[in-house]
Amino acid sequence: MDKNNKKNNRQNFSKNFKSNQKFTKYPSMNEKAQEKKIEDVSGSKEIVSITAHVNKVVQTGGPTVFVVSDGTGNLSLKGFIKPGVRAYPEIVEGLIIKAVVEIGEFQGEIEGEIKSIIILNENDKKYFLESMKEIEKKRAKVTPPPFLVDNNILAKLKDNFIEAATQIRLAIIQDRPIIVRHHNDTDGYSSGFALERAILPLIGKQHSSEKAEWEFFMRAPCVAPFYEIDDSIRDMAISLRNVAKHSNKMPLIIIADNGSSQEDLMGIKQGKVHGADFIVVDHHFFDKDVISKEVLVHINPFLVGEDGAKFSAGMLCAELARFINPDVKNIEQIPALAGFADRIDITNPELMNKYMKIAQNEGYTKELLSDISLVIDYVSSKVRFMEVREYIEVLFGEPRNKQKHLVELMSPFIRELDKKGLKIGKSNVKVEKIGNVNLQVLYFEEFFPGFGFFPKPGRIVGLVHDSLQEEKGITNLVTVGVMATALTMRATNEANFSVHDLIHFLDKKIPEAFVEGGGHKNAGSINFLPNKQKQVFELLKEFIKSR
Amino acid sequence: MDKNNKKNNRQNFSKNFKSNQKFTKYPSMNEKAQEKKIEDVSGSKEIVSITAHVNKVVQTGGPTVFVVSDGTGNLSLKGFIKPGVRAYPEIVEGLIIKAVVEIGEFQGEIEGEIKSIIILNENDKKYFLESMKEIEKKRAKVTPPPFLVDNNILAKLKDNFIEAATQIRLAIIQDRPIIVRHHNDTDGYSSGFALERAILPLIGKQHSSEKAEWEFFMRAPCVAPFYEIDDSIRDMAISLRNVAKHSNKMPLIIIADNGSSQEDLMGIKQGKVHGADFIVVDHHFFDKDVISKEVLVHINPFLVGEDGAKFSAGMLCAELARFINPDVKNIEQIPALAGFADRIDITNPELMNKYMKIAQNEGYTKELLSDISLVIDYVSSKVRFMEVREYIEVLFGEPRNKQKHLVELMSPFIRELDKKGLKIGKSNVKVEKIGNVNLQVLYFEEFFPGFGFFPKPGRIVGLVHDSLQEEKGITNLVTVGVMATALTMRATNEANFSVHDLIHFLDKKIPEAFVEGGGHKNAGSINFLPNKQKQVFELLKEFIKSR
Amino acid sequence: MDKNNKKNNRQNFSKNFKSNQKFTKYPSMNEKAQEKKIEDVSGSKEIVSITAHVNKVVQTGGPTVFVVSDGTGNLSLKGFIKPGVRAYPEIVEGLIIKAVVEIGEFQGEIEGEIKSIIILNENDKKYFLESMKEIEKKRAKVTPPPFLVDNNILAKLKDNFIEAATQIRLAIIQDRPIIVRHHNDTDGYSSGFALERAILPLIGKQHSSEKAEWEFFMRAPCVAPFYEIDDSIRDMAISLRNVAKHSNKMPLIIIADNGSSQEDLMGIKQGKVHGADFIVVDHHFFDKDVISKEVLVHINPFLVGEDGAKFSAGMLCAELARFINPDVKNIEQIPALAGFADRIDITNPELMNKYMKIAQNEGYTKELLSDISLVIDYVSSKVRFMEVREYIEVLFGEPRNKQKHLVELMSPFIRELDKKGLKIGKSNVKVEKIGNVNLQVLYFEEFFPGFGFFPKPGRIVGLVHDSLQEEKGITNLVTVGVMATALTMRATNEANFSVHDLIHFLDKKIPEAFVEGGGHKNAGSINFLPNKQKQVFELLKEFIKSR
Repeated sequence: MDKNNKKNNRQNFSKNFKSNQKFTKYPSMNEKAQEKKIEDVSGSKEIVSITAHVNKVVQTGGPTVFVVSDGTGNLSLKGFIKPGVRAYPEIVEGLIIKAVVEIGEFQGEIEGEIKSIIILNENDKKYFLESMKEIEKKRAKVTPPPFLVDNNILAKLKDNFIEAATQIRLAIIQDRPIIVRHHNDTDGYSSGFALERAILPLIGKQHSSEKAEWEFFMRAPCVAPFYEIDDSIRDMAISLRNVAKHSNKMPLIIIADNGSSQEDLMGIKQGKVHGADFIVVDHHFFDKDVISKEVLVHINPFLVGEDGAKFSAGMLCAELARFINPDVKNIEQIPALAGFADRIDITNPELMNKYMKIAQNEGYTKELLSDISLVIDYVSSKVRFMEVREYIEVLFGEPRNKQKHLVELMSPFIRELDKKGLKIGKSNVKVEKIGNVNLQVLYFEEFFPGFGFFPKPGRIVGLVHDSLQEEKGITNLVTVGVMATALTMRATNEANFSVHDLIHFLDKKIPEAFVEGGGHKNAGSINFLPNKQKQVFELLKEFIKSR
Repeated sequence: MDKNNKKNNRQNFSKNFKSNQKFTKYPSMNEKAQEKKIEDVSGSKEIVSITAHVNKVVQTGGPTVFVVSDGTGNLSLKGFIKPGVRAYPEIVEGLIIKAVVEIGEFQGEIEGEIKSIIILNENDKKYFLESMKEIEKKRAKVTPPPFLVDNNILAKLKDNFIEAATQIRLAIIQDRPIIVRHHNDTDGYSSGFALERAILPLIGKQHSSEKAEWEFFMRAPCVAPFYEIDDSIRDMAISLRNVAKHSNKMPLIIIADNGSSQEDLMGIKQGKVHGADFIVVDHHFFDKDVISKEVLVHINPFLVGEDGAKFSAGMLCAELARFINPDVKNIEQIPALAGFADRIDITNPELMNKYMKIAQNEGYTKELLSDISLVIDYVSSKVRFMEVREYIEVLFGEPRNKQKHLVELMSPFIRELDKKGLKIGKSNVKVEKIGNVNLQVLYFEEFFPGFGFFPKPGRIVGLVHDSLQEEKGITNLVTVGVMATALTMRATNEANFSVHDLIHFLDKKIPEAFVEGGGHKNAGSINFLPNKQKQVFELLKEFIKSR
Repeated sequence: MDKNNKKNNRQNFSKNFKSNQKFTKYPSMNEKAQEKKIEDVSGSKEIVSITAHVNKVVQTGGPTVFVVSDGTGNLSLKGFIKPGVRAYPEIVEGLIIKAVVEIGEFQGEIEGEIKSIIILNENDKKYFLESMKEIEKKRAKVTPPPFLVDNNILAKLKDNFIEAATQIRLAIIQDRPIIVRHHNDTDGYSSGFALERAILPLIGKQHSSEKAEWEFFMRAPCVAPFYEIDDSIRDMAISLRNVAKHSNKMPLIIIADNGSSQEDLMGIKQGKVHGADFIVVDHHFFDKDVISKEVLVHINPFLVGEDGAKFSAGMLCAELARFINPDVKNIEQIPALAGFADRIDITNPELMNKYMKIAQNEGYTKELLSDISLVIDYVSSKVRFMEVREYIEVLFGEPRNKQKHLVELMSPFIRELDKKGLKIGKSNVKVEKIGNVNLQVLYFEEFFPGFGFFPKPGRIVGLVHDSLQEEKGITNLVTVGVMATALTMRATNEANFSVHDLIHFLDKKIPEAFVEGGGHKNAGSINFLPNKQKQVFELLKEFIKSR
């Protein structure tokens, strides 16, 4: 039973519940009214003719309100028979109407009082829709700016950038809500924030209302490093409620710094069943591209034969933000911030230098960026899946002086926690030699204080891994954290490691462990059944030896 | 200190906070105004006299709004002295008043501006209340429809159905919010959804507002297989807030596919202290009926000497839905859906055939119902205690084409997860023979990946239990999942098992283990103290041997 | 980028998004308008001149609304150019303006329509701000009432009480939201509730709106026995959102029955970065006062050389409530309730007698208070970090008859749970003698059913500790609960124990265990790394022996 049927059903209801439904008179069209586009309607009293698409029908306790748009803007039209009674029940969402209305104001908003209204015939409808599409397309059109830096990867992806930006602008123009879902680390937050900075002001403009920035936009981290089916179900549940309660449209969902892998597929497909659309901007490795055919646009360096480890998602999204909104503010430091967090300074120092210069022009030093990144990591572990939009704004420098104070306060505090974490890690680490490779092992079950403790196991593994390199100059190193049902790994280039190859290796050797996981070549994690822990760990050593 | 006292206290407040309270003039009653019932008030300007019960008093920044009802409908009356100052402070919630009002419109809603208002004397009040009760009763009255199927259990329960439906209709007419709390499985969701389909349209009618469907109705699963004290405290906390903030009434709570057992008693009693009322529709076994005397209506086959295992709660609620609302839509497939999920096809195949025919008329095959059930189980494990009303609507076929797409997408995916769960279970199961009974044991601590993994232990036990029967034709079988502080069990009829007898047995043999639990005869779970796990397991074997 | 910049940026936006911004005419000041204070503005139509501070600027879809205050009250001024277009863009939050307005009503609220508006020059501004400050200060001024009881600790803290009450009143007058964060036990709830009873009615008065009591006030327990950084980040995230979305001010946060220790410092400092201010009312021991210099007011008996164990936080807050609001209701029983819960009857029986007499005058017996305390402990374990304000009101006697029914229903039920908890504890306790001290040890990992079980480990330790004293008259006793990464302890005076000394002892002996913790001398808990559990426990015994 669809929405319109539901509304009709409500009208011929069981006899003991009051029903005041009456037939409505439709006055003949007033031929003298001037045809106008919505953008040309002013606040002054006048009678005009509007041709438009019905976006929403809201039955208030008083009149029935029809929110219509013609591509140039939105207008509320009111029809009234009796309080709470549906006026013009034949006018439902999705139709194209032509209405003669008297323009006036109600609580300061421009509105039209319906004098007469008709549904367009198929021919006129077709013509109108084509012209509306043209108008929307024209408004959505992107004038590609030069990239912030000269770069081969960006050049190859330029058409994807244009298409993604156009789709995002179109969604805004069509009043579709936008949801940005990103990886739960500094690169992910940087990606989400850059897009947010570009999109929010356009939403504000489109709806002439500051509240719209919360009603039509949401940015939130994924808990796992994928757009899980859980995320997708939750997003759909919220969106479907907004459709039912507020006659919203289904959202455009942008997955950032996640989204390119097999593990994201079901979440995306599930959303599409309900009418959501997707754009993915990622730089993680995938075995096979199963995503492109399911989404509007897919941006990933691996898609154009380049290495995603050399370009972070935050960099990609900062560049994309400028395509979406040429006036976007406060994103100049984001590529450098995201890049350091994802170690692009190691994989692609030349690129980092370019972005670092841009950040420096805005007054960001490498130290400050590193401190900000530290605070983002810490705060993200506390806020988990919550949006906390305004708090995140402060972390990204809105305003700058608060960012400074917050980072000055918290980064020494967090460094102390890290120091403690490192100390705990180091006093519990076991080292052994496997061929030329040094293997550091941390058995977290033995010493980790548990849920809520910062730094978390993955971070401790990273701290211990870096520490041995710095202190003893060991460059051929794999560090692994062993948990009941998971391993977390970090490797140096010299160790010739590969998380993806390990997963394939374990899949063959011990399928009954049901190994799953992912990450980058030199950093990632896998999980498995608890009673296979020992065997998996022995096979990890065999894998290292075999390289 | 009750609400009215609080309001008065607020008026003689500490001297440095402004208080503009003044005495109000009460003009003498205008004798020429015509007495009208609220349902007869139209939108046109007129002066009428209304006798009604004061439901709510809302002090706005402007006038004081009195929402009154006379059994035929609701009307808002406004009194005004000075902005934000309480008009007619002697008129409080719960009184019966007679007011002369000028009817008009404000923001499209019909309202009355108070010209004069008096409190009815005791005699008039008594007379009014009796007549209002009559009007409400008449509106609440149920014309019992024929049941969907001929059935002995239904026939025996018919009077309870009429009483339950009448109470639910009365609650709607009296603007009481309704909360439906149901078991967290397919039968429970089916129960809740059937009631929701019947109740929501009536609420929409009563309040002439689509938003009312969210303000006056909530359906949510219980996390445990009981209406726990936790659920009850949460429901009361939310309801009390709505009373304080929105002058709502305390709710009628319908517990579906839960609610008949000793474990539900405290939750129900706790709710009653705060003014909630309860109706229980269940089919689970109880040792002793402690519930009937605490609730408005209690429906359970065991109450009329019948076996609840032969009639699922979803079936009961689908039948009840038709008593509540003769125009209820989209419930024809629910008895079959719920029945298969609760294995009524094994315990009562004749009944299942009847309901299956009705479902088939709506285009539901057994395969489709089984797939829907699978998706409900999976989604419910993801959404946990959230309502996600609109998402659930899709799962139940609103609209049908989306249900189809969603189920076609997700059921193969979930079957893969089940296959993996079964494989894990089978490669870790231990079988032993106890007399003639085959006992399969799954030590979950050894192999279960942990929280968040699907299928959950109870489901794995079911899969492994069914699999051995199908593959090896073993029909005398008990399967048990062993966890740190719990056992989950499934048995065949031939094994002559009984979860309830086991609990009594353990209570006697090892009271210091503090065993608790429940379920059906052949399926259920118990929990106990962790250091008694081995002894409890040994006693389980002794129990099986002793049968 | 700060808020005002953001608004300006929004105006010169990308060309394809509509922007109707036009220049505004500023009519010259109407010299004939009479200057009035806001408290003197009545509902009647008149033209007046207002000098005031701009609290909020809200851009509606219609006019721009400026909420201004002059210390005597708030008024909304409307400026209108075109729907949704910012009027007077130079008038931003924080400025002092002089406006000629036509007073009128909109939806019953008094408002001013702006005829002309100017920004005050520096001189006039300075003069205005001083006079506004004077007015606010005068309104905030406290007339100290006599304390409920004669007491040395109270006498020494009197000036802090006056200062705290003044700051709280000032926050209310300045429309700052207030957040009360309290310890998650009966003493903590009593503290929070006493403050709530004082503050809520003043907020109601200030805003002439019942909804304000939810918009400008929140009381919620801390999960840990500190104002953790997690609490602080969450409070700031919510507050920053309210600033952005509703132009609220940053809150005044009162930490009650927590807040005096080193562990609270980062949470407080973090809040201050974002513009929150803090008041702490606590009675817990601290090693060194690091808090006073960070907060507006710090109240703690230890600050004036007294023992906090002899005066509970609920007592302090009940006394403070009377300073804040001389008309505060329903707090007479709170000191006795809180005192028994925190065992002040043992440490300071004379004080308890005095407060008990006051409670008895209100009809509270010791038994009833003990039952209420029991129910609060139980409910708090269920609602965890949620506010559930109205539910808590019932527990504290609003209304009294519901409190009675609820406590009569639940306390026997909870006592049964406690009995079971005690039985489990006693059947698993190990006792040994260390010198003269009896040491009871409970290894929770062996027998505790896990998360969600009531009573929780800390409560079981208390029950088992009290039970041995009562049953066997043992008075030299330490009881300790051993968990994977924590110890929970209770001691008698005779045992000469000290949680704080133990922590110092362990810090020295085994720094690699990273021991942390707190509490009172005879009751508290510590945590440490899991692989140090055995050593820490051995050192505990050494510590007891050494005393």
